[in-house]
Amino acid sequence: MTVANRWRLPDGIDEVLPEQARHVEHLRRSLLDYFALWGYEQVIPPLMEFSDSLLLDLGHDVDVYAFKLIDQISGKTMAIRPDITPQVARIDAHSLKREGAVRLCYAGSVLHTRAKSVLASRSPIQVGAELFGCDGLDGDIEVISLMLGMLHAAGIENCHLDLGHVGIYRALVADSGLTQDQQAELFDALQRKASAEIDILLQAAAIKPAMANQLRALGRLNGDVTVLAEARKVLAGAPAATLAAIDQLQAVADVLQERMPSLVVHFDLSELRGYDYHTGLVFAALVPGHGQALTNGGRYNDIGAVFGRSRAATGFSADLRAVAQFSQLAIASDAAIFVPFELAQPAWHEVQRLRAEGEIVVVALSVEDVVDSRCDRILTCTDECWSVVSL
Amino acid sequence: MTVANRWRLPDGIDEVLPEQARHVEHLRRSLLDYFALWGYEQVIPPLMEFSDSLLLDLGHDVDVYAFKLIDQISGKTMAIRPDITPQVARIDAHSLKREGAVRLCYAGSVLHTRAKSVLASRSPIQVGAELFGCDGLDGDIEVISLMLGMLHAAGIENCHLDLGHVGIYRALVADSGLTQDQQAELFDALQRKASAEIDILLQAAAIKPAMANQLRALGRLNGDVTVLAEARKVLAGAPAATLAAIDQLQAVADVLQERMPSLVVHFDLSELRGYDYHTGLVFAALVPGHGQALTNGGRYNDIGAVFGRSRAATGFSADLRAVAQFSQLAIASDAAIFVPFELAQPAWHEVQRLRAEGEIVVVALSVEDVVDSRCDRILTCTDECWSVVSL
Repeated sequence: MTVANRWRLPDGIDEVLPEQARHVEHLRRSLLDYFALWGYEQVIPPLMEFSDSLLLDLGHDVDVYAFKLIDQISGKTMAIRPDITPQVARIDAHSLKREGAVRLCYAGSVLHTRAKSVLASRSPIQVGAELFGCDGLDGDIEVISLMLGMLHAAGIENCHLDLGHVGIYRALVADSGLTQDQQAELFDALQRKASAEIDILLQAAAIKPAMANQLRALGRLNGDVTVLAEARKVLAGAPAATLAAIDQLQAVADVLQERMPSLVVHFDLSELRGYDYHTGLVFAALVPGHGQALTNGGRYNDIGAVFGRSRAATGFSADLRAVAQFSQLAIASDAAIFVPFELAQPAWHEVQRLRAEGEIVVVALSVEDVVDSRCDRILTCTDECWSVVSL
Repeated sequence: MTVANRWRLPDGIDEVLPEQARHVEHLRRSLLDYFALWGYEQVIPPLMEFSDSLLLDLGHDVDVYAFKLIDQISGKTMAIRPDITPQVARIDAHSLKREGAVRLCYAGSVLHTRAKSVLASRSPIQVGAELFGCDGLDGDIEVISLMLGMLHAAGIENCHLDLGHVGIYRALVADSGLTQDQQAELFDALQRKASAEIDILLQAAAIKPAMANQLRALGRLNGDVTVLAEARKVLAGAPAATLAAIDQLQAVADVLQERMPSLVVHFDLSELRGYDYHTGLVFAALVPGHGQALTNGGRYNDIGAVFGRSRAATGFSADLRAVAQFSQLAIASDAAIFVPFELAQPAWHEVQRLRAEGEIVVVALSVEDVVDSRCDRILTCTDECWSVVSL
């Protein structure tokens, strides 16, 4: 690399410059403070852990997205976290070891070997909240309400809620006789709602017609709450777990609509986001007119076991910079007081007093012959009296 | 790794649990807000860049401490930042391209392949401030004053200031005829103030006696301001740059003592911290009775050139968690209001109102039969009236 392009950043790796950084920092604080109001306590997990601790083996996704490194001290494989959720699950299961419900939140950088979507960053700032120890629907409801509240706290209104349940697909395929490979292919096709492919797959696998119809129907079962009634018809005769999952979707949606009557809820029964580690209700919030989910999450009950303690868990996360793009939060003014160079030393105590009052004060250096553009006032001294006057 | 120890963290890699995290987060905000009061604007550089951009080739230190990775997209070598300062220099030189003085600050995680000292973390949270475009002593004075002010803002009083100047050693060795390797050995011995080793080195290199005496004297030239007068005697006849550096130390110390009369200033003329990239005044703040510097920095004028624009620069940084260990900042209470499970749904709007007023409200889930230990009040409902009463 020549001197001329040493400043280049790798694809999908971004820096945040002052104006945007003020916005991102303000949003970061607002969201962590909002989580705190709900009793969610912040934790700061490390950037890097042994690969095993990051649960890279749990799901194909996590493994593919993680940068791996050799620890010079232990000789073991470590990875830069591609996701903070498994770290927080480790903290709940092992480090805190508290009984009952535990509410945790976090904000921190993660790294991905490749972008998760065309527009996504490879270095997102992940912010999220996780609830452990509650397997009831009231846990799902709390976490989804918190997620929607977070978006409101970020000044983002009119988000749609997307609800799904991986239990529906799981129960259907468990009964289907499909091999692991076939399940993976079908999963992939369903995600893309590629109905022709789904047909071919089901035929090739010689699935019983009734079950094939049910699996095929999944891809179509998305829309408003009427989808649930339709699903009960189409999936009549499906395993009990499938119908129980539909009941859960209904119950959660009912409470959320009661809390937020204007909330638009969209159901998608083939939604299998994070199929590898989710175990129940999954959800996402979308800004109308913007394809990508702004924040998403779901139930992932089994993770704690690998750290020695099986715990119910549900939570969500978002990329802070993606949220910042839509956030309408007003931020405090950065208007400053200018102090001319010749006053730098005599004004020292006055400047410190002004800063202690919360004023931004830029004291000119010998090289500064122009006033910083943020300065709208200037410190002056007349008859040994300090005063701040407009510029 | 068996299931039983999957929770283990690599040596020197730490997580921060809720109680300490509240403290660290509060401190992080306090320090960034303090920098802002001085006109320092926050930037958020990425965790990872191409190795060249992180200036791993500038100094032995930076290279040895950086974890390296191959970018699957470009095939080039990237590294996890072991230091944020070069990134901020790149942002000043290339991304912002502003004229005149530019004041920037940051807080973010870095990773080191090995700990920089016995007690140091391999995953510090680096917080710091950098001033670009000012080569004058007023720049050094602003940055050192800001560093001391930051410690005061962190509730840490009575820090000692350590002052040095790499120009003294640089000018002496430039004149000595020592090879690069010999310079490196001497540098190492001086850092450890290993006077016997220094003697052997100087003899072996057949340095002229007058110069050998001067280099030998460096290791002894540390203490209060009287050291400067002694240095002028011992180094009489040394290159002009050496004496100019002593004058700079004196001038900066004089202004700082006028601003902060009770400040204890300690001079160390063999202090060569960051010798690889520093070019002038270097400084550190120490808590009395604690060996390690809590925060340190210095002038590094030449870095911007590799990004296409040579810029004067000085700044400092600290590990936020190390600062937190000594910080005496009071943090806001986390006392919360408890809402019994049966009120969860009927109290929804009242709970949201209380949270909007800044109250922490923990709404019990069905699994929570014990009241969260942070709760000192409870929400009750009598005759359709909500009230919060002490627990």
